Amino acid sequence: MAKKDWKAKAKALKKDIKALLKPAVPAKPVKAVSPLAPAKFPILPRIAGAEFSAIEAGVKYQNRKDVMLVCLAPGTAIAGAFTRSSTRSGCVRDCQAKLAMKVPAGAGAAIIVNSGNSNAFTGAVGDEAVAAVTGGVAEALGIPASRVFSSSTGVIGEPLPYERITAKIPELVAQLQEAAIDMAAQAIMTTDTFPKGAAASIEGEGGVINIAGIAKGSGMIAPDMATMLVYIFTDAKISAANLQKLLSRNVDATFNSITVDSDTSTSDTLLVAATGKSAAAEVKGATLKAFEAALKGVMMDLAHQVIRDGEGATKFVEVRVTGAVSDDDAHRVALSIANSPLVKTAIAGQDPNWGRIVAAVGKSGAEADRDKLTIKFGDIVVAKNGWRNPKYTEQDGADYMLQPELVIGVDLGLGRGKRSVWTCDLTNRYIDINADYRS
Amino acid sequence: MAKKDWKAKAKALKKDIKALLKPAVPAKPVKAVSPLAPAKFPILPRIAGAEFSAIEAGVKYQNRKDVMLVCLAPGTAIAGAFTRSSTRSGCVRDCQAKLAMKVPAGAGAAIIVNSGNSNAFTGAVGDEAVAAVTGGVAEALGIPASRVFSSSTGVIGEPLPYERITAKIPELVAQLQEAAIDMAAQAIMTTDTFPKGAAASIEGEGGVINIAGIAKGSGMIAPDMATMLVYIFTDAKISAANLQKLLSRNVDATFNSITVDSDTSTSDTLLVAATGKSAAAEVKGATLKAFEAALKGVMMDLAHQVIRDGEGATKFVEVRVTGAVSDDDAHRVALSIANSPLVKTAIAGQDPNWGRIVAAVGKSGAEADRDKLTIKFGDIVVAKNGWRNPKYTEQDGADYMLQPELVIGVDLGLGRGKRSVWTCDLTNRYIDINADYRS
Repeated sequence: MAKKDWKAKAKALKKDIKALLKPAVPAKPVKAVSPLAPAKFPILPRIAGAEFSAIEAGVKYQNRKDVMLVCLAPGTAIAGAFTRSSTRSGCVRDCQAKLAMKVPAGAGAAIIVNSGNSNAFTGAVGDEAVAAVTGGVAEALGIPASRVFSSSTGVIGEPLPYERITAKIPELVAQLQEAAIDMAAQAIMTTDTFPKGAAASIEGEGGVINIAGIAKGSGMIAPDMATMLVYIFTDAKISAANLQKLLSRNVDATFNSITVDSDTSTSDTLLVAATGKSAAAEVKGATLKAFEAALKGVMMDLAHQVIRDGEGATKFVEVRVTGAVSDDDAHRVALSIANSPLVKTAIAGQDPNWGRIVAAVGKSGAEADRDKLTIKFGDIVVAKNGWRNPKYTEQDGADYMLQPELVIGVDLGLGRGKRSVWTCDLTNRYIDINADYRS
Repeated sequence: MAKKDWKAKAKALKKDIKALLKPAVPAKPVKAVSPLAPAKFPILPRIAGAEFSAIEAGVKYQNRKDVMLVCLAPGTAIAGAFTRSSTRSGCVRDCQAKLAMKVPAGAGAAIIVNSGNSNAFTGAVGDEAVAAVTGGVAEALGIPASRVFSSSTGVIGEPLPYERITAKIPELVAQLQEAAIDMAAQAIMTTDTFPKGAAASIEGEGGVINIAGIAKGSGMIAPDMATMLVYIFTDAKISAANLQKLLSRNVDATFNSITVDSDTSTSDTLLVAATGKSAAAEVKGATLKAFEAALKGVMMDLAHQVIRDGEGATKFVEVRVTGAVSDDDAHRVALSIANSPLVKTAIAGQDPNWGRIVAAVGKSGAEADRDKLTIKFGDIVVAKNGWRNPKYTEQDGADYMLQPELVIGVDLGLGRGKRSVWTCDLTNRYIDINADYRS
């Protein structure tokens, strides 16, 4: 063999070996935890009647748990809210269909979730995958398939290799335990930089009622009826109808009031499960009020954690709109500001560029009168009556913008409508995360 | 004096001198011309009856022309379209009020424009500035103030130092000439990296009819009824009513079909002036059709140039939606895709991430059926019938994305509604431009 041929062959071989050594998915850059993350994952109360497990199934990611299972005791009431996207995933359609059946809570129930693949826009094959996974869980737990709910999160349009999940069901079932909710929170992460959990406990009649919830979400966050993946568990005794009522009337002020990037997911799912295993009596009267407040608190906490993990976020921002002709108008203005790339880049640059807030109010479509508009940074009055506040100085604004948590106040001076929306800034890191690799 | 005191004093003095030497506005990073820019500024035909001048007034920028004046012959018909923002600027309100007066075209007319300050959200002081500038021009040219139209573009919320403009009116008037339209195109630039011009000529009855237009715009581009600043001139003989009709019915498919960042400006203004000085007879019949096509061509050309100068843009993208139940629905879907930060960052990363297109269709609010959806990159069928095209390969998609000009095709399979929207990608450069300094 001529030296030249030998060299070429060696080179080709080297290339082959390199390709073989390459992991299935190229290593992602190490994810630094968001600077806005809570100090640590909270200690969540155990919820009697709710058992968790999580496992490595290798759906897409390597070396991490990517499937979680929740087993819920007979009698558990389930309520849900979902994305209104017209291209929503098979899992979402399946959950909606099953909740609409109103199967009596007598049987047990389960929730199975995978990360790494959203099984969205995968047609009939995707529907088969949902049936296989939920059917497999139903069989293993001896419960009706109509009481097994599923979610998938990750890349859109790729067929879900569901056999990797069904093969792990026996192991998932064997490992179920009340104490494993934190592992479940980790298993559902995609571009999240920290797992998200929140809890509350209230005194019921005759015993304590606990609530524990987990969530995932970081990008494609502009929920419409619900957000990302959120699972909240409680041991309260409450009917499915009442649970749904509480959920529905608090979802607008919590999950529907956050936005990272104005992009609504195909998989947004919020499920609340009440096992009824608390020693406390059925939730009603004064307890119902306290329970609703506690549930809303957990929902708000999880929603805020999603924003704190917004892709590339360095600022946590509340946009607080008051004085609108209606709450709907206030919401429209708040979202218009919170979704404005120019407002979000100014915040990233710590630039008190309030003119961009004016423009965002103007484009919102809500009723607004330039000469009645007030704009505030925290307590600093920046502009009022259609004109810059003479006492406002650029330095005051610039100093305020240095803080990691900001409140942008807008009063439209027209009525009593008010709403807040929470968002984050738009940074180069957001571009890098979303331009450089597929999550 | 102790040595220590002396040192401190010297240090303070040095700081003072440094501050004194600092230019009024910090030097901006040198702007590279957009990679999507046309090779050169086109040669625009002279429009009889339209004279231009441009000057350095130092409104905000140093060492560049920042005010332009157009003087239009008696008999010129004027039509306009403006932003619908509820916080639109004093200039826009003034133009709208003057057009509504329907002053007969007998008198001459003028347009005066400054860059560097938008005079938006500047309250009564801003309205005074508009009156002073347009009044000054009216007096200098001996025409009614109701025929002097103005625009201001630049930072929002700062008082316009209008005396710097009024002081230059005599000089502007003295320098008026038909050949200076290219200087005018330069004077209205803000974050633009190239001046924008387009032209057309048609054979009228008895002579040639010329059209020449200029535009500025780069960021805060999501026009609503009109875009940024656009001025189109023609020597056609046509009534103001007919001119307005042609303008209004073509603005939706041109300027209202482009978006850089979903942020609508407070200053969007499109003015078309017809001097009637062509040798050709009044525009009607077959000539009207040809004239409308030529006018639409100039509008489309200028609109596309605005996208080609989108802040940080590296890709020029047409989103072509067909098969919608209505044109409105098609427009909604196209805008939802064109404004999606996730789609735009994927394009920046040359990633054929079509799942994000599916999500953008889903969140649009338009009627869509997953199982009838077709997605194409140019002629490549990526997905159809709610599922990835089996013949599609990731490599085909990746190769396609390398091109600087892309066509994303979406067929909803539901009806005959269709619309195109033009946009650009979302890059780190957009963040840098908008986070690092105030334009």
